[in-house]
Amino acid sequence: MQLHLSTWPEIEAYLATSKAILIPIGSTEQHGPNGLLGTDALCPEIIARRAGDEAGFLVGPTFNVGQAQHHMAFPGTITLKPSTMIASMLDWTESLTRHGFERIYWLNGHGGNIATINAAFSEIYHGVTFAGANFSNATNGPPLRLHLRNWWELAGVMDLCRELFPVGEGSHATPSEVSVTYFGYPEAVKSVAMSPRIAPTGPIRDAEDYRRRFPDGRIGSDPSQANVEAGGRIVAAAVNAVIAEFRQFGTA
Amino acid sequence: MQLHLSTWPEIEAYLATSKAILIPIGSTEQHGPNGLLGTDALCPEIIARRAGDEAGFLVGPTFNVGQAQHHMAFPGTITLKPSTMIASMLDWTESLTRHGFERIYWLNGHGGNIATINAAFSEIYHGVTFAGANFSNATNGPPLRLHLRNWWELAGVMDLCRELFPVGEGSHATPSEVSVTYFGYPEAVKSVAMSPRIAPTGPIRDAEDYRRRFPDGRIGSDPSQANVEAGGRIVAAAVNAVIAEFRQFGTA
Amino acid sequence: MQLHLSTWPEIEAYLATSKAILIPIGSTEQHGPNGLLGTDALCPEIIARRAGDEAGFLVGPTFNVGQAQHHMAFPGTITLKPSTMIASMLDWTESLTRHGFERIYWLNGHGGNIATINAAFSEIYHGVTFAGANFSNATNGPPLRLHLRNWWELAGVMDLCRELFPVGEGSHATPSEVSVTYFGYPEAVKSVAMSPRIAPTGPIRDAEDYRRRFPDGRIGSDPSQANVEAGGRIVAAAVNAVIAEFRQFGTA
Amino acid sequence: MQLHLSTWPEIEAYLATSKAILIPIGSTEQHGPNGLLGTDALCPEIIARRAGDEAGFLVGPTFNVGQAQHHMAFPGTITLKPSTMIASMLDWTESLTRHGFERIYWLNGHGGNIATINAAFSEIYHGVTFAGANFSNATNGPPLRLHLRNWWELAGVMDLCRELFPVGEGSHATPSEVSVTYFGYPEAVKSVAMSPRIAPTGPIRDAEDYRRRFPDGRIGSDPSQANVEAGGRIVAAAVNAVIAEFRQFGTA
Amino acid sequence: MQLHLSTWPEIEAYLATSKAILIPIGSTEQHGPNGLLGTDALCPEIIARRAGDEAGFLVGPTFNVGQAQHHMAFPGTITLKPSTMIASMLDWTESLTRHGFERIYWLNGHGGNIATINAAFSEIYHGVTFAGANFSNATNGPPLRLHLRNWWELAGVMDLCRELFPVGEGSHATPSEVSVTYFGYPEAVKSVAMSPRIAPTGPIRDAEDYRRRFPDGRIGSDPSQANVEAGGRIVAAAVNAVIAEFRQFGTA
Amino acid sequence: MQLHLSTWPEIEAYLATSKAILIPIGSTEQHGPNGLLGTDALCPEIIARRAGDEAGFLVGPTFNVGQAQHHMAFPGTITLKPSTMIASMLDWTESLTRHGFERIYWLNGHGGNIATINAAFSEIYHGVTFAGANFSNATNGPPLRLHLRNWWELAGVMDLCRELFPVGEGSHATPSEVSVTYFGYPEAVKSVAMSPRIAPTGPIRDAEDYRRRFPDGRIGSDPSQANVEAGGRIVAAAVNAVIAEFRQFGTA
Repeated sequence: MQLHLSTWPEIEAYLATSKAILIPIGSTEQHGPNGLLGTDALCPEIIARRAGDEAGFLVGPTFNVGQAQHHMAFPGTITLKPSTMIASMLDWTESLTRHGFERIYWLNGHGGNIATINAAFSEIYHGVTFAGANFSNATNGPPLRLHLRNWWELAGVMDLCRELFPVGEGSHATPSEVSVTYFGYPEAVKSVAMSPRIAPTGPIRDAEDYRRRFPDGRIGSDPSQANVEAGGRIVAAAVNAVIAEFRQFGTA
Repeated sequence: MQLHLSTWPEIEAYLATSKAILIPIGSTEQHGPNGLLGTDALCPEIIARRAGDEAGFLVGPTFNVGQAQHHMAFPGTITLKPSTMIASMLDWTESLTRHGFERIYWLNGHGGNIATINAAFSEIYHGVTFAGANFSNATNGPPLRLHLRNWWELAGVMDLCRELFPVGEGSHATPSEVSVTYFGYPEAVKSVAMSPRIAPTGPIRDAEDYRRRFPDGRIGSDPSQANVEAGGRIVAAAVNAVIAEFRQFGTA
Repeated sequence: MQLHLSTWPEIEAYLATSKAILIPIGSTEQHGPNGLLGTDALCPEIIARRAGDEAGFLVGPTFNVGQAQHHMAFPGTITLKPSTMIASMLDWTESLTRHGFERIYWLNGHGGNIATINAAFSEIYHGVTFAGANFSNATNGPPLRLHLRNWWELAGVMDLCRELFPVGEGSHATPSEVSVTYFGYPEAVKSVAMSPRIAPTGPIRDAEDYRRRFPDGRIGSDPSQANVEAGGRIVAAAVNAVIAEFRQFGTA
Repeated sequence: MQLHLSTWPEIEAYLATSKAILIPIGSTEQHGPNGLLGTDALCPEIIARRAGDEAGFLVGPTFNVGQAQHHMAFPGTITLKPSTMIASMLDWTESLTRHGFERIYWLNGHGGNIATINAAFSEIYHGVTFAGANFSNATNGPPLRLHLRNWWELAGVMDLCRELFPVGEGSHATPSEVSVTYFGYPEAVKSVAMSPRIAPTGPIRDAEDYRRRFPDGRIGSDPSQANVEAGGRIVAAAVNAVIAEFRQFGTA
Repeated sequence: MQLHLSTWPEIEAYLATSKAILIPIGSTEQHGPNGLLGTDALCPEIIARRAGDEAGFLVGPTFNVGQAQHHMAFPGTITLKPSTMIASMLDWTESLTRHGFERIYWLNGHGGNIATINAAFSEIYHGVTFAGANFSNATNGPPLRLHLRNWWELAGVMDLCRELFPVGEGSHATPSEVSVTYFGYPEAVKSVAMSPRIAPTGPIRDAEDYRRRFPDGRIGSDPSQANVEAGGRIVAAAVNAVIAEFRQFGTA
Repeated sequence: MQLHLSTWPEIEAYLATSKAILIPIGSTEQHGPNGLLGTDALCPEIIARRAGDEAGFLVGPTFNVGQAQHHMAFPGTITLKPSTMIASMLDWTESLTRHGFERIYWLNGHGGNIATINAAFSEIYHGVTFAGANFSNATNGPPLRLHLRNWWELAGVMDLCRELFPVGEGSHATPSEVSVTYFGYPEAVKSVAMSPRIAPTGPIRDAEDYRRRFPDGRIGSDPSQANVEAGGRIVAAAVNAVIAEFRQFGTA
């Protein structure tokens, strides 16, 4: 069930049965010579929408621009300041909570988002802790629960990725994530020769430093291995895992 | 050409030929008994993507949550504070400008966004005016141009809508916008009887007042008339118009 | 009745009879060769004070600096960032609401303010919508109503302006607005020859672009026609219209 | 010379001779049973405008709402959060500095503003110190100088006030400041009996505490002594003093 | 009693007997050739901790970085923007108030902090005034009291300083404050010849101007006179005075 | 070498040999029945100061209040909103970078700080990436490097902790961290019986939930095992490790 394809009476009906929603959250940033700029938003979106439709839970709009300052030396990357991202996530959460949602599951597609998502959670819980407090002793706020899950850490997914791509999985612009987007958007499959075949590895710092170290954007990966079929297998595994985890989270 | 389905080398190549990009911008908010919560983000997205693919210009990610506080009494609506929206649009724009984009065309799907988009433009131009100034006389900033266009005001579109729906077009949850989304997502077509057939009209104030005045969310409209075919005709007209206008803007 | 010339017991007494107040809001920005920098703040102030005194309603202090970044290439212009203006208007409104005011009528003197004023209204209503909510279902907030009226759009005013200045009214530094300030401050009448007599027209962008397009600051106007008598006629018409509209608003 | 009654070419000409401007800054807050809500903005405005006209220096628009949270239990008071006031003063200053002003003299009418004005000065100088720095060693910024002067501390003024009102001058809603406004606005003179004749004194804390301690708003004063003639004498003394001080400041 | 060396059950027990806490607040900034960068934080910390231990009242963590932009041309200085400092002090205060503290005594070590601390107090009281207000008439907030005391203004301290250093006390990097830190940290005593023996005096503006006027950082002082014994006498006097004042404040 | 015990000429001399500084960063929050509220700030401070003195590198002031909203139901805890903490860390970093520091090593004492510290790093690097950019193509910023290290993850430390406390180390209010503070402040050793001896474990959410799950504040630990001698061994190991790591970082 997709929020953006639903009517408000459908959401009202849903809220009578569940207080839980899943928000895909990603980034718009370079993913090497053959990876899509939307990769990190598309992966959780592709997985979440299939899972939500299959299991009947609600999937909200995709938070599609995130923390990508270190990719800014590559054209097409868009980034939010962490303070802006925290303010936005707070507004999304307050809106959802205002309607009665009490469990918000953020399915994340970008490692660089993790810290800021957790900081945003603290900012939101800070509000709950001081809610109604107004400089006096407050009663307990509502049982709001926020959950962060990176799609590649869903049960069984990492193992499958390693099985599919024993060499050159790397850590940015991986064949696994590129495969997921190729499965979702087969019309966007790109065939690009990689040189070197496996990209270098190293630390992530500011944008200029990143481009010097990783001239084509990849870190440690060979995404020329990416293919639709592998993407389909990863998506299937992730869908199963997220359904199980969301079910537990939504009723905890 | 979709930014999220492109690689960074493709964007680099595009920038050698054009400094212009289109950003669809909308809202996630109730659209009456049979309208989708995503309507205002989906309409500009559907039109823009077709236009970008047909004419070869670049379409960025959709800014999918906007100004919807007055719809907050209907479940599923998500809203940003205006100050948050301004900060986000500033970050998006600074990122794009950093890569060399000089013309940003915002195709808008929500009347309630207009004021805040224009305020964000002022905040961005304020930065340009004071850029490098640092309390001294600055030289002229780069020729950044921001453009706002509401899709229903594209040349010829409003006339077509009135022709298609001479009665009950109204101003919120209109048969025209619902038709556009039905055309884009035929699997989401909903058949709901409207009562009264044409919704009341009146002023827009805060959220509670809105729900009292417009109990099912519509203003002045009968969206039960919405259909895929009408949506297709509106999209076709809008695609032609936005291509013409973007071409002129991008090279002005 | 002027707030700044009243005592607090007088305001307390006023509040027992009315919850409505009018705030003049303008800008401090260049108005061409013979127009005053204060024009956009002075026009609503001149009209409002006369109206408030005649009809006995309350006029607050003038919000005298607004959105003028595009005039920054002309000395004397002062501008607020939109985010600062929103924060200030929020503080003014919260203060007034704290005393029991429920109807705030903003009489505006500057077209460039409109978007940010409306964005500020959304920010304020956002607060009302989430007031007391604190992540739970809130009861309805108080019946706060905000109203924006540009003085030149008051009933009958535009017709009179066109009658007085059939040629060269233009859109910035108009003979009408300059006349209103000359009526209010006859000691400030300036006699300046215009060259060309009627200024060029064109789009408004950033500050440097503005000065290139409109070298003496005017847009499409010939304000050398401005005179005290015309100002007096416009003020008289506007005072009548604002009294009628405020009365209706204050008791709605 | 008043900025709001000047044209931009007049300011351009002024800047060729002086880089200094005076900004009256005050507050809108209760001033007891017979004092005007605008007192703290009107006093510096009355003095500054006479001084500027007499000596030919430039007086900007009045910053008319300030720090008045402790007066919020009295109707008509309007207050800014300190953080909002700092942001506004920063915007005013950046605008003026953009035009080439290098000496900004703030003539203040409200003791409660002093701390926040000085904090705003620090925020502005912080910008100067880090200007162009951008994480590297910056060259020196321009010679911006900010000056705060409370009108009652101008040379000779306090002595005159004590001479005029040896008993009951007090510290809020003083006969001196009320006299200044009566001189400026004789039509607003109010005759109100004070009870007790001299108000109590005590510490200033939050708004509710203030009203409990000072039920009619005065602190230690008997403003029933206020009169137009005394106001005229105080204004004359203040005008002389501010002219002398501004001249020195503007050329230092 | 030191908060950072206490357990939460000890604080819970303390709160049953007192709602008052002392926060040392200072700055990290140059203090001339032989003064420590931590001087302004160390002085109130040294005094407060001794006082708290002797009298049994609670001393919180030291707020150790403050307003020091004008010292930024000397290495080692760290400064907060005033707006950041206000936000931080607000968070500290809300946390303490959440636990039931109602009296917060800020023992300050830096003249440059005074304005911003008072602005922060206004920001905090603003919250109290509007607490629970949510656009309606609020009941009175809790009896929060904030108190600022500069350690050198404690009863008897200034007299003692003048007695100890009749010549060359000056106003920045004074022998008195340096002595206090030498008493607290005798291992950090530095012997440095001063040239000239007594530093120049003058106004404080931005950072570059400061270093030009005061090349070694001192203003009007000869801190080569500083010594451990004098520091001990000043600390003893200050401890007695702060105990007396805090006792009165905590129970007022 | 301690910044707060150094003079500015000493820092100037240090900068001629090294551009690196270490900042201890922690939290002020409950640490169970016998753990100090200052534990998370004291641990990195104790380790860092010993290391800096032994190896001759510079240690800055301790950032002593951090992310502790989930501990707010226990008296004495003080917390910053994440957005405030980011703003503060940005100000500290800009100040240090202004003096020429290029390597900032944050030695952290609190797991709950990790996300927000990393978000602050992104906010700081964002500034570097856009530095001087002003909407045009910027040259590379300076080689600023930020490093986060949790003291318990220093080489060899965790192994030693497990050896010292094979049972009941837990994850909050651990015997290891309490031992470190007891070693640093032996006068603050507290003897408190734990019941149950080993605290429960579970997820961390908002403040009220935390207190319900962990009534005395501990998670999974038995800190009654804490002792000065164990603290001394942990500190010795950590000092060695941080010296080695800082040396490498400072010259990388």
